[in-house]
Amino acid sequence: MAKKLKIYWGSGSPNAWRVLLTAELKKIPYESKMLEFSKEDHKKPEFVALNPRGKVPVIRDGDFTLYESLAIMTYLERRNPEPAIFGRNAAETGRIWRTISEFECYLRQPFDDMLRPILFKQLPEKNKQVQTASETVRAELGRLEQSVDSNPWLCGREVSAADVAVYPFVKFIVRQTSKDELKPLNLGLAPFETKFPKLQAWMKRVEALPGYERTYPPHWRSQ
Amino acid sequence: MAKKLKIYWGSGSPNAWRVLLTAELKKIPYESKMLEFSKEDHKKPEFVALNPRGKVPVIRDGDFTLYESLAIMTYLERRNPEPAIFGRNAAETGRIWRTISEFECYLRQPFDDMLRPILFKQLPEKNKQVQTASETVRAELGRLEQSVDSNPWLCGREVSAADVAVYPFVKFIVRQTSKDELKPLNLGLAPFETKFPKLQAWMKRVEALPGYERTYPPHWRSQ
Repeated sequence: MAKKLKIYWGSGSPNAWRVLLTAELKKIPYESKMLEFSKEDHKKPEFVALNPRGKVPVIRDGDFTLYESLAIMTYLERRNPEPAIFGRNAAETGRIWRTISEFECYLRQPFDDMLRPILFKQLPEKNKQVQTASETVRAELGRLEQSVDSNPWLCGREVSAADVAVYPFVKFIVRQTSKDELKPLNLGLAPFETKFPKLQAWMKRVEALPGYERTYPPHWRSQ
Repeated sequence: MAKKLKIYWGSGSPNAWRVLLTAELKKIPYESKMLEFSKEDHKKPEFVALNPRGKVPVIRDGDFTLYESLAIMTYLERRNPEPAIFGRNAAETGRIWRTISEFECYLRQPFDDMLRPILFKQLPEKNKQVQTASETVRAELGRLEQSVDSNPWLCGREVSAADVAVYPFVKFIVRQTSKDELKPLNLGLAPFETKFPKLQAWMKRVEALPGYERTYPPHWRSQ
């Protein structure tokens, strides 16, 4: 019997959340290694030895180490092919990766530009950056809203890697932009269930997946 | 006999170059559809109907349309599995995607920040941005240099999707930063063969692949 997969993650990291969701979807037993960002666990030598960039997620599978969330997801897909989350034929695979690539190319940077000033208390100085980024975020969420208009999942009738890759970031956006202190900024993202009702329903579907509760950021429960 | 794959690309687009290289590596016959950026072909309604973002590359395979370069590469891998470029086992697949993800997350933006002001004649106003971005570009190229220190290819002993995904961007950097007008900026990237000798040798290996010549940007030959 091989040793259990180890997943190194941090509470609230959307990249790490992708890996936990993948493991749960595939029912892969894993040993949870939660880093404490407040203690700078991710900068400690034993962790930097695993990922020289000092970032979560990282996995250890026996002697094999891997970082970068999408890379880990593809690794787990080959390690445990069922249920397939990267498609069962060429067209499905292409569409799933298209959705992931569009997220990475068009939404990730505006996501950062919009949320970092909020998280790092740089308002109102960076109000303009947040406003500008929020326009792109709204437009890209609008595209995603269309994707789940006629299908339950982003790429069709089955949950896929696209849902896993995108969900943690959308959840993060909803959580941050629903805060009262942001109301004066009028980012056009709250209340989320009114602005993006189809995405809201999609999120509920993700949240009903078996094992989801185990992946929920622990420090979000107490705040 | 199915209709030939159609590849929509533009001369000098590194994203589109990835798809041409993939088709050549897999010996997939294709119909070349070269768009002329100078004529704004990529903004014409018939093209926007294929990709609402108005960007190359796009493929048509019978009735199936797909855009986003990495997505197309994964599609072609499932359509024509040999030679495999996304790995033959979980560890290979994970390492290949790790390299691609690291490129996308850490090198693509600095690549843009460094080269766009050069291409769009925004120097010397944006000298500082170019300098700052070039520091990250140098550091990331240094990591890639290490990858090809003991192996001929970025992820081992066989050419992979990582080489295909990264090469067009490195070639672009070399071409732009070797221009005489940039010497005063001292970006620390030229002469490339002295600064990054292992990467230079790796590029020569890519350029010796069968079919490479057919993928070379036509407008580069005349300049």
